[in-house]
Amino acid sequence: MTDAFSFALHAKDGAARTGEISTPRGNIRTPAFMPVGTAATVKGVYPEQVRATGADILLGNTYHLMLRPGAERIARLGGLHHFMRWERPILTDSGGFQVMSLSALRKLSEDGVTFRSHIDGAVHELTPERAVEIQGLLGSDIQMQLDECVRLPCEDAEAERAMRLSLRWAERSKRAFEAQPKGRALFGIVQGGAVESLRIESARALADMDFPGYSIGGLAVGEPQDVMLRMIETVEPHLPSTKPRYLMGVGTPDDLLEAVARGIDMFDCVMPTRSGRHALAFTRFGKINLKNARHAEDPRPLDEESDCPALRDYSRAYLHHLIRCGEMLGPMLLTWANLHYYQDLMAGMRAAIAEGRFEEFRAQTKAGWAAGDIPERG
Amino acid sequence: MTDAFSFALHAKDGAARTGEISTPRGNIRTPAFMPVGTAATVKGVYPEQVRATGADILLGNTYHLMLRPGAERIARLGGLHHFMRWERPILTDSGGFQVMSLSALRKLSEDGVTFRSHIDGAVHELTPERAVEIQGLLGSDIQMQLDECVRLPCEDAEAERAMRLSLRWAERSKRAFEAQPKGRALFGIVQGGAVESLRIESARALADMDFPGYSIGGLAVGEPQDVMLRMIETVEPHLPSTKPRYLMGVGTPDDLLEAVARGIDMFDCVMPTRSGRHALAFTRFGKINLKNARHAEDPRPLDEESDCPALRDYSRAYLHHLIRCGEMLGPMLLTWANLHYYQDLMAGMRAAIAEGRFEEFRAQTKAGWAAGDIPERG
Repeated sequence: MTDAFSFALHAKDGAARTGEISTPRGNIRTPAFMPVGTAATVKGVYPEQVRATGADILLGNTYHLMLRPGAERIARLGGLHHFMRWERPILTDSGGFQVMSLSALRKLSEDGVTFRSHIDGAVHELTPERAVEIQGLLGSDIQMQLDECVRLPCEDAEAERAMRLSLRWAERSKRAFEAQPKGRALFGIVQGGAVESLRIESARALADMDFPGYSIGGLAVGEPQDVMLRMIETVEPHLPSTKPRYLMGVGTPDDLLEAVARGIDMFDCVMPTRSGRHALAFTRFGKINLKNARHAEDPRPLDEESDCPALRDYSRAYLHHLIRCGEMLGPMLLTWANLHYYQDLMAGMRAAIAEGRFEEFRAQTKAGWAAGDIPERG
Repeated sequence: MTDAFSFALHAKDGAARTGEISTPRGNIRTPAFMPVGTAATVKGVYPEQVRATGADILLGNTYHLMLRPGAERIARLGGLHHFMRWERPILTDSGGFQVMSLSALRKLSEDGVTFRSHIDGAVHELTPERAVEIQGLLGSDIQMQLDECVRLPCEDAEAERAMRLSLRWAERSKRAFEAQPKGRALFGIVQGGAVESLRIESARALADMDFPGYSIGGLAVGEPQDVMLRMIETVEPHLPSTKPRYLMGVGTPDDLLEAVARGIDMFDCVMPTRSGRHALAFTRFGKINLKNARHAEDPRPLDEESDCPALRDYSRAYLHHLIRCGEMLGPMLLTWANLHYYQDLMAGMRAAIAEGRFEEFRAQTKAGWAAGDIPERG
C-alpha cells in the first residue's frame, strides 16, 4: 500500500511484462484483467466472489453511472467503492465510448459531446472537464481522458481528425484532473484508427504529456485480430516502458495472450460476464457451449481440477438444465466460472513471465484450447 | 442421523409445537420453512447460501422436474440431491397441483390425469402410482400422494368429489410407495375445500391409513386468511399429534405465525423467492418495496443487526439502484435476504415455543411489522 500511484516492472520475457501498480486502495498485479462492473455491479456475481477469483481491480462505466444513479448521488452516498462494496481499486472509462455506441442524437464539437440518454432521452453533456469531474465524484482510482473513438474500418482523414481532437482533449483532461486528490491516476488514450503513422503520432504526443499510464483505445471495435495486434506492435515502442499500458475493451482469452506477448499490462472486457450469461464457458479445454444438448447427461464438471466451485462442483448436465430452463443460477455459475478462468489465465501469464517461460505457457495454453474438450465418458 | 424416518415432538405451547423430523439425509427442525426449488434450483441463490440461511430441507416440484430434465434422467445422474448439490432432505409434491394450474388440456379420470406440458405440448400422464414412481426416481425423502386440488370458492359437491377421489388415490399411492427404500416417507393430503365436515372426514380417513405425516392441501388457493385458519383449526384435532403436519403452499410471514399457532409443523412457499425477484423485502420492520424512489438515497441496509450479508451490508440506495437498472444482483440479494428472514422467523418461533413464550413472540413480531420501517435519517 502507498499514498501515491506508481508502477513497478518486475520482469520482462520478450515483450511480455509483469509488474505491480500501487494505489492507496491496494495493488494491481499485471498483466491484469479487470472485470466490468458497468452499472456498479459485475453482473450476476457478488463482489466478494469477484475478489475471490483473483481480481485486483474492477472497471466502472462512466456513461452508465452518470445516467443511473448519477455521479453526484454516488458521491453523496460515499463514492462508488462504498456504494458497490468493492474497496479495492476501480478504473473508470470516460464515458465517450458508450456515448458513441449507445446514446441517440449525439452532437460532437470541439468542446465535447451532447447526447440523449438511451434510458429516458434526457439531454446530457460530456466535456473533457466534466468527464474527469464525474470520475472524481465516483472516486475512481484510475481515470480516463475523454476521447473520440471511431469505428473501424474508417477513412484515414476521419481517424486523423478524431485522434487530433482526442489529443486536445487529453490536454484539457489533464488540467482538469490536477484538482483531484493525490494517489489517483489519469491515463491518456492512444487513438488513430488502423493507421500506423497516426497511432505513432498519438502515442508520442501523449508520452510527451507524461501521463502515469497509457490506454490504447479504438481497437476491438470490429477489426480482425491481426489488425489489432499490428496496432499494438506499432504503438508499443513509443510508449514509456516505465508506465502501464492498458488495451481497452479486450478481449478473448487468445486476445489476452497475444496482447500480453506484445507488452500490454491491463485489460477489461465484458466477454467473460456476457458470455457467461449466454451459456458459453471459457475453460482450459477451450469454449464450451452449455446450450448444446450433448451436455444433457454429462455428469462431469467443467473442470474438475479447478479451485472454483462453479467450474469444479456442478455437472455439465446440471448447467445445461439450468440454461434450458432459464434459471438464474445458470448465468450466475457460468459468469463466476468465466471470471475465475480469466483470472487464472492472467495469474498463469504473470508466473510464466516472472520465470522466463512465457512462450512455453502461451504454446501450452493454446494447445489446451485446440485439443478441445476432455474426452466424453463411455 | 438415523436410517428411519421419525418425528419427535420436543415442546408444545398452546397449540404451537416444536420438534424434529429425523431422516437418513439429516434432521429437520420444526416448525420448518422449506424454500422452493422448483426446477432443481432455488431461484437466484447457490445451494450453500440456502443452507447457510438455516434451511434444513428444500421442496422440489415433481411436475416441473418430470418435464425438464425428466425423472429418469435425474435418476441416471444420481438423483435430485446430487444433481442440484443439496445433500440434505428434499420434499417433493406429487405434481397434481401444477398439472391443474399450469398444463393445458387436462383430462381427469379415476385412474389419474393426462395433460399437455406447458413447455412443449407433449402429452404426459400422472397416476398415483406414477407420481410416487417419479418421486422415487428423484430420490425424494418426503413424498406426497397424488391428490386433486380444487380452487376456492367451489361447490360443496365438487369439493366432496375431489376429496373422495384424493382418498382413493391416497390408498393407491401408499401401496405404490411400499416398494421404496427405508427412511423415506409418504404423506397423505387432507382435502375438502372450505367445507368443515369434508375436511374432518378427509383427515380421519387419512389418519386411519397411518401415514408418517399429513399435509393440508387445497388452501392458500385464493381464499381469505380467516378461511384458511378456520380449516386448519377444523382439521388439527383429527390429525395424530405424533406426526408432522405440513400446510402446503403457505405463506406470508403472518400466515406462518398464525398457522404455527394452530399446530402446523411444516411450510413451503415461493413467497420469499418470488417476492425477492420482484423487489419486495420481508424484514423485522415489515415489507419494504425497494422499487420505491424514497430509497434512492437511503444509505441504511435493510437490517443492520442481521447476520445475513444481504440484509446487513448493502444500502437500500444500492438495492434500489440495482432493481431500477434490472441488474441480476438485485434479485440475488433480495432472494437471499428473504430466505434468511423466513428462516430467522422460524428459528424465533422454535425457540419461543421451546421456552413457553410463543404468544409473546407472536405479539412482538407483529408489533415490529406494524410499527413499519425504522425512522428515515435526517
